[in-house]
Amino acid sequence: MSSVDRLLSAIRVVLVRPSHPGNIGAAARAMKTMGLGRLYLVNPARFPDPQADAMASGATDVLASARVCGSLAEALSGAVLAFGTSTRRRELLARWRTPEQAAPELLTEAGAGREAALVFGNETYGLSNAELESCQALVTVPASADYSSLNLAAAVQVLGYELRRQALAGAAWPQPQIEAADLAEVERFYRDLEERLAAVGFLDPASPKRLMPKLRRLFARTRLAREEINILRGILGAATARGRDKID
Amino acid sequence: MSSVDRLLSAIRVVLVRPSHPGNIGAAARAMKTMGLGRLYLVNPARFPDPQADAMASGATDVLASARVCGSLAEALSGAVLAFGTSTRRRELLARWRTPEQAAPELLTEAGAGREAALVFGNETYGLSNAELESCQALVTVPASADYSSLNLAAAVQVLGYELRRQALAGAAWPQPQIEAADLAEVERFYRDLEERLAAVGFLDPASPKRLMPKLRRLFARTRLAREEINILRGILGAATARGRDKID
Repeated sequence: MSSVDRLLSAIRVVLVRPSHPGNIGAAARAMKTMGLGRLYLVNPARFPDPQADAMASGATDVLASARVCGSLAEALSGAVLAFGTSTRRRELLARWRTPEQAAPELLTEAGAGREAALVFGNETYGLSNAELESCQALVTVPASADYSSLNLAAAVQVLGYELRRQALAGAAWPQPQIEAADLAEVERFYRDLEERLAAVGFLDPASPKRLMPKLRRLFARTRLAREEINILRGILGAATARGRDKID
Repeated sequence: MSSVDRLLSAIRVVLVRPSHPGNIGAAARAMKTMGLGRLYLVNPARFPDPQADAMASGATDVLASARVCGSLAEALSGAVLAFGTSTRRRELLARWRTPEQAAPELLTEAGAGREAALVFGNETYGLSNAELESCQALVTVPASADYSSLNLAAAVQVLGYELRRQALAGAAWPQPQIEAADLAEVERFYRDLEERLAAVGFLDPASPKRLMPKLRRLFARTRLAREEINILRGILGAATARGRDKID
């Protein structure tokens, strides 16, 4: 396996709720041509399916080794970085980048032997806001203002091409600046934090406003290190124990 | 129309003998998302076709304005630069480049108000050698050695993306170094040259060897200016007249 192939093989493609099995197959074909092999499917409408096999052409092995998951969190477990894709810049989220900007970040993690993910939403509805909040940033293909709706497999092809182009350019990927935390750990932290904020009365579960999305955004921007997530969870644990002490 | 759109609208996408109408539609969609609009179809198996419309999604206007041609030469008439695409580097042709290398050359012509073309072959057979000889160079998407077979529309998407990416990068495209000749003129020159070479006995029509492809390659490498093609055709005309004098 060449060093480029090794790099690319550490990047997951996650398709969330794909409607058309043909698109799953076409995405698998797009992946394999660009050297990507790890396909994750979150609640696909139909899979496996003969239409997926037909559209995969010579990439049925990618389908055969695809992992079907019940949630995006499950598909991201074990990865340290996830970028959601959207054909629209969602300015509100503010953390969008071009494929060109996103590729070095993904390849940097891959180069350090860790896994990163590109997350693609449903053909019609894209990713939900909650799903986008599970990603560290948003990637938008710079499409025409007149018509920006790329086919799902076409979007996979473009992102795969950009990753491969930059991997082949043979830049020495910089050492990542942090030892990034597993995204499953980060999700656990958010859950604990939300519970604790509700317990202390800072967050009203009946009217949560945008508190958790805002906190997520803060941590997504810095990106949490493994050590930091341990510290934060330790603080939460201590606060919870202390909170119980008070109630007792 | 933005300057990027104006630049991209001068680039033709030529599909030669596409078998599947669905691929024509998907290619039209890929084009429109990247701001390309000029679709040329050389002897499509079926067109128009409801499957093409369905796969075009919101890009049926690209299909409606597509020009159906009887030959590649017809589709290239009026353009000054044509790059053929292939998933294999054909080393024999020697004039291949990456999409990254090809884009500035195409955009340079577009920036000078002239038309350039990207030529895509049949899904199974690609472009014939004769068709590749009608192109100035070959563009190859850097695909995996394990599996390099991009779907036709996926290849259009990648090339379109690379053109758009570079057009958006907003580089000031250099003035082209030559006032390039119309490809229809160049083809007429090759025809006249071949006839003349046969007439003087340098080329044996029964055993032409690789003479014309080699001459084509020579001129493709330099690229002929409008003035030069006039000079060369003038020389051929004079030689022909002189040839006739001798025979008389």
